[in-house]
Amino acid sequence: MKFYDCKSAPSPRRVRIFIAEKGLEIPTAQVDLRNGEHLTERFRELNPWCTVPVLELDDGTTLSEAVAVCRYLEEAHPEPPLMGVDARDRAVVAMWEHRFEIDGFLAVTEAFRNQARGLAGRALTGADGVAQIPELVERGRGRVERFFAALDAQLAHHPFVAGERYTIADITAQVAVDFAGWIKMSLPDECRHAADWYRRVSARPSAAA
Amino acid sequence: MKFYDCKSAPSPRRVRIFIAEKGLEIPTAQVDLRNGEHLTERFRELNPWCTVPVLELDDGTTLSEAVAVCRYLEEAHPEPPLMGVDARDRAVVAMWEHRFEIDGFLAVTEAFRNQARGLAGRALTGADGVAQIPELVERGRGRVERFFAALDAQLAHHPFVAGERYTIADITAQVAVDFAGWIKMSLPDECRHAADWYRRVSARPSAAA
Repeated sequence: MKFYDCKSAPSPRRVRIFIAEKGLEIPTAQVDLRNGEHLTERFRELNPWCTVPVLELDDGTTLSEAVAVCRYLEEAHPEPPLMGVDARDRAVVAMWEHRFEIDGFLAVTEAFRNQARGLAGRALTGADGVAQIPELVERGRGRVERFFAALDAQLAHHPFVAGERYTIADITAQVAVDFAGWIKMSLPDECRHAADWYRRVSARPSAAA
Repeated sequence: MKFYDCKSAPSPRRVRIFIAEKGLEIPTAQVDLRNGEHLTERFRELNPWCTVPVLELDDGTTLSEAVAVCRYLEEAHPEPPLMGVDARDRAVVAMWEHRFEIDGFLAVTEAFRNQARGLAGRALTGADGVAQIPELVERGRGRVERFFAALDAQLAHHPFVAGERYTIADITAQVAVDFAGWIKMSLPDECRHAADWYRRVSARPSAAA
Protein backbone atom coordinates (compact mmCIF):
# COMPACT_ATOMS: atom_id res chain seq x y z
CA MET A 1 0.00 0.00 0.00
CA LYS A 2 1.26 3.49 -0.80
CA PHE A 3 -0.29 6.82 0.09
CA TYR A 4 0.24 9.79 -2.23
CA ASP A 5 0.07 12.92 -0.15
CA CYS A 6 1.02 16.59 -0.20
CA LYS A 7 1.82 17.62 3.33
CA SER A 8 0.76 21.26 2.84
CA ALA A 9 -2.59 20.51 1.15
CA PRO A 10 -5.95 20.29 2.96
CA SER A 11 -7.60 17.61 0.81
CA PRO A 12 -5.13 14.80 1.63
CA ARG A 13 -5.09 16.03 5.24
CA ARG A 14 -8.58 14.57 5.56
CA VAL A 15 -7.01 11.15 4.96
CA ARG A 16 -3.90 11.90 7.04
CA ILE A 17 -6.09 12.58 10.07
CA PHE A 18 -8.15 9.45 9.35
CA ILE A 19 -4.95 7.37 9.17
CA ALA A 20 -3.69 8.90 12.42
CA GLU A 21 -6.99 8.15 14.19
CA LYS A 22 -6.75 4.54 13.00
CA GLY A 23 -3.18 4.34 14.27
CA LEU A 24 -1.92 3.15 10.88
CA GLU A 25 1.52 3.57 9.34
CA ILE A 26 1.34 3.68 5.55
CA PRO A 27 4.34 4.29 3.27
CA THR A 28 3.82 7.76 1.91
CA ALA A 29 5.05 9.67 -1.14
CA GLN A 30 4.88 13.46 -1.28
CA VAL A 31 3.51 14.88 -4.54
CA ASP A 32 4.91 18.30 -5.38
CA LEU A 33 1.73 20.20 -6.24
CA ARG A 34 3.55 23.52 -6.25
CA ASN A 35 5.68 22.43 -9.17
CA GLY A 36 2.86 20.66 -11.01
CA GLU A 37 3.87 17.06 -10.37
CA HIS A 38 0.15 16.17 -10.22
CA LEU A 39 -0.23 17.33 -13.83
CA THR A 40 2.53 15.13 -15.22
CA GLU A 41 1.83 12.14 -17.46
CA ARG A 42 3.20 9.84 -14.80
CA PHE A 43 0.87 11.06 -12.08
CA ARG A 44 -2.11 11.10 -14.43
CA GLU A 45 -1.64 7.39 -14.97
CA LEU A 46 -2.13 7.03 -11.24
CA ASN A 47 -5.04 9.46 -11.04
CA PRO A 48 -6.47 11.04 -14.20
CA TRP A 49 -8.16 13.70 -12.04
CA CYS A 50 -4.73 15.02 -11.01
CA THR A 51 -5.56 15.25 -7.32
CA VAL A 52 -4.22 13.98 -4.04
CA PRO A 53 -4.96 11.98 -1.93
CA VAL A 54 -4.40 8.72 -3.80
CA LEU A 55 -4.06 5.32 -2.16
CA GLU A 56 -2.36 2.63 -4.23
CA LEU A 57 -3.22 -0.88 -3.11
CA ASP A 58 -0.87 -3.83 -3.37
CA ASP A 59 -2.85 -5.26 -6.30
CA GLY A 60 -2.27 -2.01 -8.23
CA THR A 61 -5.73 -0.54 -7.66
CA THR A 62 -5.53 3.22 -7.26
CA LEU A 63 -8.13 4.96 -5.14
CA SER A 64 -8.65 8.69 -5.27
CA GLU A 65 -11.30 10.90 -3.64
CA ALA A 66 -10.77 11.30 0.11
CA VAL A 67 -14.04 9.65 1.10
CA ALA A 68 -13.31 6.57 -1.05
CA VAL A 69 -9.80 6.20 0.38
CA CYS A 70 -11.28 6.42 3.88
CA ARG A 71 -13.96 3.89 2.96
CA TYR A 72 -11.24 1.39 2.07
CA LEU A 73 -9.26 2.03 5.25
CA GLU A 74 -12.41 1.75 7.38
CA GLU A 75 -13.25 -1.67 5.96
CA ALA A 76 -9.69 -2.96 6.03
CA HIS A 77 -9.11 -1.61 9.57
CA PRO A 78 -12.48 -1.39 11.30
CA GLU A 79 -11.20 -0.19 14.70
CA PRO A 80 -11.86 2.40 15.87
CA PRO A 81 -14.96 2.92 13.70
CA LEU A 82 -14.90 6.38 12.08
CA MET A 83 -17.77 5.93 9.62
CA GLY A 84 -20.54 4.75 11.92
CA VAL A 85 -21.39 1.67 13.96
CA ASP A 86 -24.67 0.39 12.48
CA ALA A 87 -26.84 0.92 9.40
CA ARG A 88 -28.57 4.02 10.74
CA ASP A 89 -25.43 5.55 12.18
CA ARG A 90 -23.38 4.92 9.03
CA ALA A 91 -26.02 6.74 6.98
CA VAL A 92 -26.12 9.67 9.43
CA VAL A 93 -22.32 9.95 9.28
CA ALA A 94 -22.38 9.79 5.48
CA MET A 95 -25.00 12.55 5.40
CA TRP A 96 -23.03 14.99 7.57
CA GLU A 97 -19.73 14.17 5.92
CA HIS A 98 -21.19 14.72 2.48
CA ARG A 99 -23.01 17.91 3.42
CA PHE A 100 -20.03 19.53 5.10
CA GLU A 101 -17.74 18.48 2.28
CA ILE A 102 -19.93 20.44 -0.11
CA ASP A 103 -21.00 23.31 2.14
CA GLY A 104 -17.67 23.63 3.96
CA PHE A 105 -14.69 22.13 2.21
CA LEU A 106 -15.81 22.78 -1.38
CA ALA A 107 -17.06 26.26 -0.46
CA VAL A 108 -13.61 27.25 0.82
CA THR A 109 -12.09 25.63 -2.26
CA GLU A 110 -14.35 27.72 -4.49
CA ALA A 111 -13.40 31.01 -2.83
CA PHE A 112 -9.71 30.11 -2.68
CA ARG A 113 -9.20 28.76 -6.20
CA ASN A 114 -11.07 31.62 -7.86
CA GLN A 115 -8.95 34.16 -6.01
CA ALA A 116 -5.38 32.85 -5.63
CA ARG A 117 -3.02 34.49 -8.10
CA GLY A 118 -1.04 31.29 -8.42
CA LEU A 119 -4.17 29.46 -9.58
CA ALA A 120 -5.14 31.77 -12.46
CA GLY A 121 -6.47 29.50 -15.20
CA ARG A 122 -6.76 26.65 -12.70
CA ALA A 123 -10.00 27.50 -10.92
CA LEU A 124 -11.02 23.84 -10.86
CA THR A 125 -8.83 20.84 -10.09
CA GLY A 126 -7.92 18.58 -12.99
CA ALA A 127 -5.84 18.71 -16.12
CA ASP A 128 -8.00 21.17 -18.04
CA GLY A 129 -7.42 24.86 -17.61
CA VAL A 130 -10.46 26.67 -16.21
CA ALA A 131 -10.58 30.46 -15.83
CA GLN A 132 -11.26 32.06 -12.46
CA ILE A 133 -14.64 33.74 -11.94
CA PRO A 134 -14.10 36.59 -9.45
CA GLU A 135 -17.75 36.61 -8.35
CA LEU A 136 -17.24 33.13 -6.94
CA VAL A 137 -14.91 34.51 -4.30
CA GLU A 138 -17.72 36.39 -2.58
CA ARG A 139 -20.20 33.62 -3.20
CA GLY A 140 -17.81 31.07 -1.75
CA ARG A 141 -17.25 33.25 1.32
CA GLY A 142 -21.00 33.51 1.84
CA ARG A 143 -21.24 29.73 1.67
CA VAL A 144 -18.50 29.43 4.30
CA GLU A 145 -20.39 31.80 6.62
CA ARG A 146 -23.46 29.60 6.30
CA PHE A 147 -21.34 26.51 6.88
CA PHE A 148 -20.04 27.99 10.15
CA ALA A 149 -23.61 28.71 11.26
CA ALA A 150 -24.85 25.23 10.32
CA LEU A 151 -21.90 23.62 12.10
CA ASP A 152 -22.66 25.64 15.22
CA ALA A 153 -26.36 24.75 15.09
CA GLN A 154 -25.57 21.04 14.88
CA LEU A 155 -22.98 21.18 17.67
CA ALA A 156 -25.40 22.99 19.97
CA HIS A 157 -27.16 19.65 20.39
CA HIS A 158 -24.45 17.04 19.85
CA PRO A 159 -20.87 16.65 21.07
CA PHE A 160 -19.70 15.67 17.57
CA VAL A 161 -20.84 16.50 14.06
CA ALA A 162 -22.67 13.22 13.44
CA GLY A 163 -23.84 12.71 17.01
CA GLU A 164 -22.27 11.03 20.02
CA ARG A 165 -19.01 9.84 18.48
CA TYR A 166 -16.02 11.36 16.73
CA THR A 167 -16.22 10.38 13.03
CA ILE A 168 -15.06 11.24 9.53
CA ALA A 169 -17.70 14.00 9.54
CA ASP A 170 -15.69 15.77 12.26
CA ILE A 171 -12.54 15.39 10.19
CA THR A 172 -14.11 16.93 7.09
CA ALA A 173 -15.53 19.83 9.09
CA GLN A 174 -12.29 20.38 11.03
CA VAL A 175 -10.20 20.46 7.85
CA ALA A 176 -12.72 22.84 6.26
CA VAL A 177 -12.47 25.21 9.25
CA ASP A 178 -8.66 25.18 9.07
CA PHE A 179 -8.72 25.55 5.28
CA ALA A 180 -10.94 28.63 5.71
CA GLY A 181 -7.88 30.28 7.26
CA TRP A 182 -6.41 30.32 3.74
CA ILE A 183 -9.11 32.81 2.76
CA LYS A 184 -8.74 34.61 6.10
CA MET A 185 -11.99 33.35 7.56
CA SER A 186 -12.46 31.79 10.98
CA LEU A 187 -15.32 30.69 13.20
CA PRO A 188 -17.09 33.85 14.36
CA ASP A 189 -17.34 34.53 18.11
CA GLU A 190 -21.05 33.79 18.22
CA CYS A 191 -20.44 30.19 17.08
CA ARG A 192 -19.45 29.12 20.57
CA HIS A 193 -20.65 25.52 20.24
CA ALA A 194 -18.56 25.09 17.10
CA ALA A 195 -15.62 26.83 18.80
CA ASP A 196 -15.79 24.43 21.74
CA TRP A 197 -15.92 21.44 19.37
CA TYR A 198 -13.05 22.90 17.33
CA ARG A 199 -10.88 23.14 20.45
CA ARG A 200 -11.65 19.53 21.29
CA VAL A 201 -10.92 18.07 17.85
CA SER A 202 -7.83 20.24 17.49
CA ALA A 203 -6.48 18.89 20.79
CA ARG A 204 -6.52 15.32 19.46
CA PRO A 205 -3.05 14.08 18.41
CA SER A 206 -4.42 13.44 14.90
CA ALA A 207 -4.84 17.19 14.35
CA ALA A 208 -1.09 17.44 13.79
CA ALA A 209 -1.42 15.24 10.68
CA MET B 1 -40.15 4.46 6.75
CA LYS B 2 -41.22 7.28 4.47
CA PHE B 3 -39.54 8.58 1.35
CA TYR B 4 -39.85 12.27 0.44
CA ASP B 5 -39.58 12.55 -3.31
CA CYS B 6 -40.33 14.89 -6.17
CA LYS B 7 -41.19 12.81 -9.20
CA SER B 8 -39.94 15.38 -11.72
CA ALA B 9 -36.60 16.07 -10.01
CA PRO B 10 -33.30 14.37 -10.87
CA SER B 11 -31.73 14.31 -7.40
CA PRO B 12 -34.35 12.06 -5.76
CA ARG B 13 -34.40 9.98 -8.95
CA ARG B 14 -30.99 8.67 -7.93
CA VAL B 15 -32.71 7.12 -4.90
CA ARG B 16 -35.83 6.08 -6.85
CA ILE B 17 -33.68 4.02 -9.21
CA PHE B 18 -31.77 2.56 -6.26
CA ILE B 19 -35.05 1.58 -4.59
CA ALA B 20 -36.30 0.01 -7.83
CA GLU B 21 -33.10 -2.00 -8.25
CA LYS B 22 -33.47 -3.28 -4.69
CA GLY B 23 -37.07 -4.24 -5.39
CA LEU B 24 -38.32 -2.24 -2.39
CA GLU B 25 -41.68 -0.61 -1.85
CA ILE B 26 -41.42 2.43 0.42
CA PRO B 27 -44.35 4.73 1.27
CA THR B 28 -43.63 7.94 -0.60
CA ALA B 29 -44.70 11.56 -0.25
CA GLN B 30 -44.34 14.00 -3.13
CA VAL B 31 -42.82 17.36 -2.22
CA ASP B 32 -44.04 20.21 -4.40
CA LEU B 33 -40.74 21.91 -5.30
CA ARG B 34 -42.42 24.04 -7.93
CA ASN B 35 -44.52 25.79 -5.32
CA GLY B 36 -41.75 25.98 -2.74
CA GLU B 37 -42.95 23.31 -0.32
CA HIS B 38 -39.28 22.47 0.37
CA LEU B 39 -38.75 26.00 1.70
CA THR B 40 -41.60 25.87 4.23
CA GLU B 41 -40.97 25.76 7.98
CA ARG B 42 -42.53 22.31 8.10
CA PHE B 43 -40.20 20.80 5.52
CA ARG B 44 -37.17 22.54 7.01
CA GLU B 45 -37.80 20.70 10.24
CA LEU B 46 -37.42 17.52 8.23
CA ASN B 47 -34.39 18.73 6.26
CA PRO B 48 -32.82 22.12 7.01
CA TRP B 49 -31.06 21.99 3.64
CA CYS B 50 -34.43 22.15 1.88
CA THR B 51 -33.69 19.35 -0.57
CA VAL B 52 -35.16 16.06 -1.62
CA PRO B 53 -34.55 13.13 -1.34
CA VAL B 54 -35.24 12.61 2.36
CA LEU B 55 -35.77 9.24 4.00
CA GLU B 56 -37.55 9.31 7.36
CA LEU B 57 -36.90 6.21 9.44
CA ASP B 58 -39.37 4.69 11.87
CA ASP B 59 -37.39 6.03 14.86
CA GLY B 60 -37.78 9.57 13.48
CA THR B 61 -34.25 9.86 12.05
CA THR B 62 -34.29 11.88 8.84
CA LEU B 63 -31.66 11.17 6.23
CA SER B 64 -30.96 13.55 3.40
CA GLU B 65 -28.24 13.50 0.72
CA ALA B 66 -28.84 10.84 -1.94
CA VAL B 67 -25.68 8.88 -1.17
CA ALA B 68 -26.51 8.71 2.55
CA VAL B 69 -30.06 7.53 1.88
CA CYS B 70 -28.66 4.84 -0.42
CA ARG B 71 -26.07 3.87 2.21
CA TYR B 72 -28.89 3.16 4.66
CA LEU B 73 -30.90 1.15 2.14
CA GLU B 74 -27.82 -0.84 1.11
CA GLU B 75 -27.11 -1.87 4.69
CA ALA B 76 -30.74 -2.56 5.59
CA HIS B 77 -31.33 -4.47 2.33
CA PRO B 78 -27.99 -5.86 1.16
CA GLU B 79 -29.30 -7.73 -1.89
CA PRO B 80 -28.53 -7.08 -4.66
CA PRO B 81 -25.38 -5.22 -3.67
CA LEU B 82 -25.24 -1.82 -5.37
CA MET B 83 -22.34 -0.28 -3.44
CA GLY B 84 -19.68 -2.95 -3.87
CA VAL B 85 -19.02 -6.48 -2.70
CA ASP B 86 -15.77 -6.28 -0.68
CA ALA B 87 -13.51 -3.62 0.85
CA ARG B 88 -11.67 -2.83 -2.37
CA ASP B 89 -14.77 -2.88 -4.52
CA ARG B 90 -16.76 -0.70 -2.14
CA ALA B 91 -14.00 1.90 -2.25
CA VAL B 92 -13.82 1.79 -6.06
CA VAL B 93 -17.60 2.24 -6.27
CA ALA B 94 -17.45 5.14 -3.78
CA MET B 95 -14.71 6.78 -5.86
CA TRP B 96 -16.59 6.66 -9.15
CA GLU B 97 -19.90 7.61 -7.58
CA HIS B 98 -18.35 10.60 -5.86
CA ARG B 99 -16.39 11.72 -8.89
CA PHE B 100 -19.34 11.55 -11.27
CA GLU B 101 -21.60 13.23 -8.75
CA ILE B 102 -19.26 16.22 -8.77
CA ASP B 103 -18.12 16.17 -12.39
CA GLY B 104 -21.47 15.09 -13.84
CA PHE B 105 -24.47 15.68 -11.65
CA LEU B 106 -23.24 18.85 -9.92
CA ALA B 107 -21.84 20.21 -13.19
CA VAL B 108 -25.27 19.97 -14.84
CA THR B 109 -26.80 21.47 -11.70
CA GLU B 110 -24.39 24.41 -11.92
CA ALA B 111 -25.22 25.18 -15.54
CA PHE B 112 -28.95 24.69 -15.01
CA ARG B 113 -29.43 26.64 -11.79
CA ASN B 114 -27.40 29.62 -12.96
CA GLN B 115 -29.43 29.82 -16.16
CA ALA B 116 -33.06 28.90 -15.45
CA ARG B 117 -35.28 31.98 -15.26
CA GLY B 118 -37.42 30.34 -12.60
CA LEU B 119 -34.36 29.96 -10.37
CA ALA B 120 -33.22 33.60 -10.38
CA GLY B 121 -31.93 34.29 -6.87
CA ARG B 122 -31.83 30.56 -6.15
CA ALA B 123 -28.60 29.51 -7.86
CA LEU B 124 -27.76 27.17 -5.00
CA THR B 125 -30.09 24.82 -3.17
CA GLY B 126 -31.06 25.73 0.38
CA ALA B 127 -33.04 28.38 2.17
CA ASP B 128 -30.72 31.32 1.47
CA GLY B 129 -31.14 33.29 -1.71
CA VAL B 130 -28.06 33.14 -3.95
CA ALA B 131 -27.76 35.18 -7.15
CA GLN B 132 -27.09 33.50 -10.46
CA ILE B 133 -23.64 33.97 -12.04
CA PRO B 134 -24.11 33.79 -15.82
CA GLU B 135 -20.48 32.77 -16.44
CA LEU B 136 -21.18 29.53 -14.58
CA VAL B 137 -23.50 28.41 -17.36
CA GLU B 138 -20.64 28.09 -19.83
CA ARG B 139 -18.28 26.76 -17.20
CA GLY B 140 -20.83 24.16 -16.16
CA ARG B 141 -21.34 23.11 -19.78
CA GLY B 142 -17.60 22.69 -20.21
CA ARG B 143 -17.53 20.48 -17.14
CA VAL B 144 -20.36 18.37 -18.59
CA GLU B 145 -18.41 17.91 -21.84
CA ARG B 146 -15.44 16.67 -19.86
CA PHE B 147 -17.73 14.39 -17.83
CA PHE B 148 -19.02 12.80 -21.04
CA ALA B 149 -15.44 12.20 -22.21
CA ALA B 150 -14.36 10.74 -18.87
CA LEU B 151 -17.42 8.49 -18.78
CA ASP B 152 -16.62 7.23 -22.27
CA ALA B 153 -12.98 6.61 -21.39
CA GLN B 154 -13.93 4.53 -18.38
CA LEU B 155 -16.58 2.55 -20.28
CA ALA B 156 -14.14 1.74 -23.06
CA HIS B 157 -12.54 -0.73 -20.65
CA HIS B 158 -15.36 -1.77 -18.33
CA PRO B 159 -18.99 -2.81 -18.86
CA PHE B 160 -20.12 -0.61 -15.96
CA VAL B 161 -18.86 2.61 -14.41
CA ALA B 162 -17.19 0.99 -11.41
CA GLY B 163 -16.12 -2.21 -13.19
CA GLU B 164 -17.84 -5.51 -13.77
CA ARG B 165 -21.13 -4.90 -11.95
CA TYR B 166 -23.99 -2.44 -12.13
CA THR B 167 -23.74 -0.13 -9.07
CA ILE B 168 -24.79 3.20 -7.62
CA ALA B 169 -22.03 4.76 -9.72
CA ASP B 170 -24.00 3.82 -12.85
CA ILE B 171 -27.12 5.35 -11.34
CA THR B 172 -25.41 8.67 -10.60
CA ALA B 173 -23.89 8.81 -14.09
CA GLN B 174 -27.16 7.78 -15.78
CA VAL B 175 -29.16 10.43 -13.93
CA ALA B 176 -26.50 13.03 -14.76
CA VAL B 177 -26.71 12.15 -18.48
CA ASP B 178 -30.50 12.45 -18.44
CA PHE B 179 -30.35 15.67 -16.39
CA ALA B 180 -27.99 17.12 -19.02
CA GLY B 181 -30.99 17.06 -21.33
CA TRP B 182 -32.38 19.93 -19.22
CA ILE B 183 -29.54 22.11 -20.52
CA LYS B 184 -29.88 20.59 -23.99
CA MET B 185 -26.75 18.50 -23.85
CA SER B 186 -26.43 14.84 -24.71
CA LEU B 187 -23.68 12.29 -25.15
CA PRO B 188 -21.77 13.23 -28.31
CA ASP B 189 -21.57 10.71 -31.15
CA GLU B 190 -17.91 9.98 -30.55
CA CYS B 191 -18.68 8.68 -27.05
CA ARG B 192 -19.78 5.32 -28.38
CA HIS B 193 -18.78 3.31 -25.31
CA ALA B 194 -20.79 5.61 -23.08
CA ALA B 195 -23.69 5.51 -25.57
CA ASP B 196 -23.71 1.71 -25.51
CA TRP B 197 -23.66 1.71 -21.69
CA TYR B 198 -26.41 4.34 -21.64
CA ARG B 199 -28.63 2.14 -23.82
CA ARG B 200 -28.04 -0.78 -21.48
CA VAL B 201 -28.78 1.06 -18.21
CA SER B 202 -31.76 2.82 -19.77
CA ALA B 203 -33.24 -0.54 -20.78
CA ARG B 204 -33.34 -1.68 -17.15
CA PRO B 205 -36.83 -1.47 -15.61
CA SER B 206 -35.42 0.84 -12.90
CA ALA B 207 -34.81 3.55 -15.51
CA ALA B 208 -38.53 4.32 -15.45
CA ALA B 209 -38.23 5.39 -11.79
